[in-house]
Amino acid sequence: MLKVGLLGAGRIGQVHAVNIAGHTGSTLAAVSDVHEAAAAQLAGQFGAQARSSEEILADSSIDAVLIATSTDTHSDLIEAAAAAGKAILCEKPVDLSLQRARACQAATSDAKAPIMIGFNRRFDPNFAALQQAAQSGEIGKAELLSVTSFDPAPPPVSYIEVSGGLFRDMMIHDFDMANFIMGEAPASIAATASAIVDPAIGAAGDVDTAVATLTYADGRIAVIKNSRRAVYGYDQRVELLGSEGLLSAANVLENTVSKSTVAGVTSAKPEHFFLERYMRAYAAEWDAFVGAVANVTEVPVTLADGVTALAMAEAATEAAKTGAPVTLAE
Amino acid sequence: MLKVGLLGAGRIGQVHAVNIAGHTGSTLAAVSDVHEAAAAQLAGQFGAQARSSEEILADSSIDAVLIATSTDTHSDLIEAAAAAGKAILCEKPVDLSLQRARACQAATSDAKAPIMIGFNRRFDPNFAALQQAAQSGEIGKAELLSVTSFDPAPPPVSYIEVSGGLFRDMMIHDFDMANFIMGEAPASIAATASAIVDPAIGAAGDVDTAVATLTYADGRIAVIKNSRRAVYGYDQRVELLGSEGLLSAANVLENTVSKSTVAGVTSAKPEHFFLERYMRAYAAEWDAFVGAVANVTEVPVTLADGVTALAMAEAATEAAKTGAPVTLAE
Amino acid sequence: MLKVGLLGAGRIGQVHAVNIAGHTGSTLAAVSDVHEAAAAQLAGQFGAQARSSEEILADSSIDAVLIATSTDTHSDLIEAAAAAGKAILCEKPVDLSLQRARACQAATSDAKAPIMIGFNRRFDPNFAALQQAAQSGEIGKAELLSVTSFDPAPPPVSYIEVSGGLFRDMMIHDFDMANFIMGEAPASIAATASAIVDPAIGAAGDVDTAVATLTYADGRIAVIKNSRRAVYGYDQRVELLGSEGLLSAANVLENTVSKSTVAGVTSAKPEHFFLERYMRAYAAEWDAFVGAVANVTEVPVTLADGVTALAMAEAATEAAKTGAPVTLAE
Amino acid sequence: MLKVGLLGAGRIGQVHAVNIAGHTGSTLAAVSDVHEAAAAQLAGQFGAQARSSEEILADSSIDAVLIATSTDTHSDLIEAAAAAGKAILCEKPVDLSLQRARACQAATSDAKAPIMIGFNRRFDPNFAALQQAAQSGEIGKAELLSVTSFDPAPPPVSYIEVSGGLFRDMMIHDFDMANFIMGEAPASIAATASAIVDPAIGAAGDVDTAVATLTYADGRIAVIKNSRRAVYGYDQRVELLGSEGLLSAANVLENTVSKSTVAGVTSAKPEHFFLERYMRAYAAEWDAFVGAVANVTEVPVTLADGVTALAMAEAATEAAKTGAPVTLAE
Repeated sequence: MLKVGLLGAGRIGQVHAVNIAGHTGSTLAAVSDVHEAAAAQLAGQFGAQARSSEEILADSSIDAVLIATSTDTHSDLIEAAAAAGKAILCEKPVDLSLQRARACQAATSDAKAPIMIGFNRRFDPNFAALQQAAQSGEIGKAELLSVTSFDPAPPPVSYIEVSGGLFRDMMIHDFDMANFIMGEAPASIAATASAIVDPAIGAAGDVDTAVATLTYADGRIAVIKNSRRAVYGYDQRVELLGSEGLLSAANVLENTVSKSTVAGVTSAKPEHFFLERYMRAYAAEWDAFVGAVANVTEVPVTLADGVTALAMAEAATEAAKTGAPVTLAE
Repeated sequence: MLKVGLLGAGRIGQVHAVNIAGHTGSTLAAVSDVHEAAAAQLAGQFGAQARSSEEILADSSIDAVLIATSTDTHSDLIEAAAAAGKAILCEKPVDLSLQRARACQAATSDAKAPIMIGFNRRFDPNFAALQQAAQSGEIGKAELLSVTSFDPAPPPVSYIEVSGGLFRDMMIHDFDMANFIMGEAPASIAATASAIVDPAIGAAGDVDTAVATLTYADGRIAVIKNSRRAVYGYDQRVELLGSEGLLSAANVLENTVSKSTVAGVTSAKPEHFFLERYMRAYAAEWDAFVGAVANVTEVPVTLADGVTALAMAEAATEAAKTGAPVTLAE
Repeated sequence: MLKVGLLGAGRIGQVHAVNIAGHTGSTLAAVSDVHEAAAAQLAGQFGAQARSSEEILADSSIDAVLIATSTDTHSDLIEAAAAAGKAILCEKPVDLSLQRARACQAATSDAKAPIMIGFNRRFDPNFAALQQAAQSGEIGKAELLSVTSFDPAPPPVSYIEVSGGLFRDMMIHDFDMANFIMGEAPASIAATASAIVDPAIGAAGDVDTAVATLTYADGRIAVIKNSRRAVYGYDQRVELLGSEGLLSAANVLENTVSKSTVAGVTSAKPEHFFLERYMRAYAAEWDAFVGAVANVTEVPVTLADGVTALAMAEAATEAAKTGAPVTLAE
Repeated sequence: MLKVGLLGAGRIGQVHAVNIAGHTGSTLAAVSDVHEAAAAQLAGQFGAQARSSEEILADSSIDAVLIATSTDTHSDLIEAAAAAGKAILCEKPVDLSLQRARACQAATSDAKAPIMIGFNRRFDPNFAALQQAAQSGEIGKAELLSVTSFDPAPPPVSYIEVSGGLFRDMMIHDFDMANFIMGEAPASIAATASAIVDPAIGAAGDVDTAVATLTYADGRIAVIKNSRRAVYGYDQRVELLGSEGLLSAANVLENTVSKSTVAGVTSAKPEHFFLERYMRAYAAEWDAFVGAVANVTEVPVTLADGVTALAMAEAATEAAKTGAPVTLAE
């Protein structure tokens, strides 16, 4: 039974708390948060203790920590938790700075306990099934990947300003998805982007609509489309053309009801945003982490995976500015 | 915060335990089971106590009980828990005997705490959305209801023999669904049935494939189709034709992946059986119960609803034997 | 090259004219109609001659006739055309009177040229594919058939009054569909019906909403649902549960466009009515007829098939009145 | 009644012949082909005359010609027919040489009768409905267009060698589709491509898998994906994200039957190739042409449209070679 300390009791921390407590192989032992009241309330619901992060890391009875704090603390907490010998599941991204992320990777390179990055979408049952089918050769050799990833609405410009930009903040998920499905990083990335959804986003130096084209050493191609606004909900689809067929993962709809009237046939919208769409993914992610710790198997998403996705985001940011493809370092 | 005793730690009890513990308005205080080890294990996972049913009912700090024991104990436990002043959520059916169910209803008629019957399908997000849309008049006046309800595979004949027969054991859910959507019980029921899936079921005196036709006082019609075997999974669909349109609730699929090859386009199957399909329904059911207790609102599924569905099952059993429609008593 | 005389230049006659002329194995030689101008115009478009029905039947150079005149002339024209040695494709129904239809069958029993009845739905590519898959054993042994058949809007009451009633006028198609898919006529038919769409239909002695349950000698069951009104379009679906799976034929939509907005995801409606939905079926029907004549193969829909469907309509009409199932004569 | 001469009696000419003859506003008067027997047979089926192209152009009773001959004759025949005063519907492309196409455009610039280019996909009911909905503002302002266009199988390398390359031969359709939906040509085009389907295509100097990214002056973006091989059939989809929603045109399937078994739920494949998928488009295209001639309205696809699409193909060919975006001349 894995004893877990949860660092961060915000919205995503609450999702993780239910999964930790509801899993037959883990218990929620302690919760920390910069807002002590939030930690206390969440801990109370599950019979856990509210403590500081430092106390949790110092407690040798705690086996693992789930880091769900703000992005700027991730690298430091990963390093501290690794030094304390904890198994780690850290929310993405590792860091907004590629340099800092690489330093974190170097600093933890000989950690004995597993370190896993929470690219939750890999655990979405739909994308996981697609990846599994592709890997099993069900459509032969992969040739052309398409990832559609639209948010329901843009975040406030105040968030945009500190987000690192669309490629680091949003498309980073899709870069990891491409790596997950294609099995490797691409050779180069080209990108086109504009601020067409909201001029204020452009004024803040960012874009809100973007297309990246990834080319692989063997001629495979991947296309990623991002928009900060899809008024009908969170649009999260993946499609892979192979030599023997096509795999498609469609959206998850709010329900299966359709209404046929003189106006047409109306179905439900996609699940509204990531908390709804990826609820099952978070549970599966936690299950994978518990399994990796228990069985000392390879972790399914490594710190290196997190660094690679960040490097791709940086390359795409540059490519969108220059118009020319950017070659990725080995 | 509702303190809950769970009676029954079997498969369905375990599902309820997660929902009770994960709900912000309830805590799992105690668990009982005829197998003490099962109660102990489930209680342990959630920091609850393993106790006997009698102890739980006698404990005045327990506000509510969830009855998830075997069917033959339901009526007795409902009466005992009501006498102890507990709020009650009891798994369906109330009883296999209509007479006993009516006696239970009479014996608890002046219970002050709410008594709710667990017709879980009413809380399925799809059927609930369909019912809500119908009630809101989105398709005008209802005219023709169709309920498709196929199990993935027949139960063992040993189960069939004590089940009360297809209409009491299986179609009772669909009778309640019809009542839920049509807003009242029908005037009469006709039925056709046969044992075509497995002759052994016929030899045991039961049927495995059945169609019931319900007619309402105002001319509306409902059709219910049951089969004990749909090899592709649990087939649970509802369709309502109204004067201004059609509402359909389709199956929930295991995932949204489709594979296109020379052999066609293959999608995932429906969720395999009730635990998968109705996982969200059980959580919503519990939420509705907590809300009914907290807000002293009307309970969404009453003991009377349970008795009505059982009376319909009895009528359909007779109608299938004689071929002639059976009129339901007021 | 089959030389064809078309009897009837109305709406459905015009559909047939295009198919006759566009088929590489047939030419449209002559057209007749009680409205001579209509015959002249249609003949003109395809370089055919406008003549009387008598002239067409008397012309030995005409190989085949397509009878698309009013229902009350069908039996007489079938007999006359058979006597003249023509191959015959006659629109359904054979007659509204079962007695007259049987007399027509008897009178033409030794006709040498093929006589085919235009139950067009058998040639719908969707229903034909379903029937073919069922026949090939793709879902094992058939157990439970469901036919949904709703018209977009009720016809005028003046039509209802001379239609023979819903079972003879509308459900007769679905009876033939059941025979087509189940491979034989049922042993008995039960039915429930009401006039809930329009009380004026009830006042005219007919019903507008009906459910028929067909039971087969071996325990198989079929359910047919009819409504005179589905405001969203022509609803034509078939579903067959078998021991190894389920076959479903869904509606054909006007187009494949869907629109996702804050209001939901809206798709196109089903094709509006039979001329749109069964356009491809009429072409395939004609192709099957030409093939049957050319290859002297068995005709795919015989006069006997037309008589059987009519007998079922008569039985259902009676069953709906009495509530009791009606046994079909062998 | 438009009297029409059909130049070319090959596969696509035969499709056009049925549409010309079946249209109430046109008759097929004459057919020519380099293979005289082919012209004679097709003419015979519809009561038309087999003649040479020269005779058809010289016959003043012929109002219009449909040019369905080989690509290398298009420009010459357009010029000759325009000089003869015929209304013209010419299969695309105008020419493989942008220079020659521009010369043809210049030479016919003061033709009085309409000249229309057969970009058939604009008349596909699905794409036409999508474009109409977009134009009507149903999803607000367009932002991001995606065109998926995969052929079922690559053509022989001998064809590839004379095709002008993937961008001129295949993606030219999609460039026109983008122009149709976005309402203007893009400002620049970037492209990535490889020969991953078949190395022999690469050896012939062409590619078989390609992605083009189109950027518009106002920040809109379009992505076009092409593959020469989708083993499951002709994959033809369009998707447009706008400020108020998403429009999607899905594939047209061979039928609406699905089969649910233990192996999953299998539906029909997309229509196999262009003759099946665009059968309705060809009829609608002809109807639009007849309407344009009769009503002297603007033709829906002009010779200039054909030249623009060709210029885009040329730009994309260059962009794929250099990796850098190519700016389109005004």
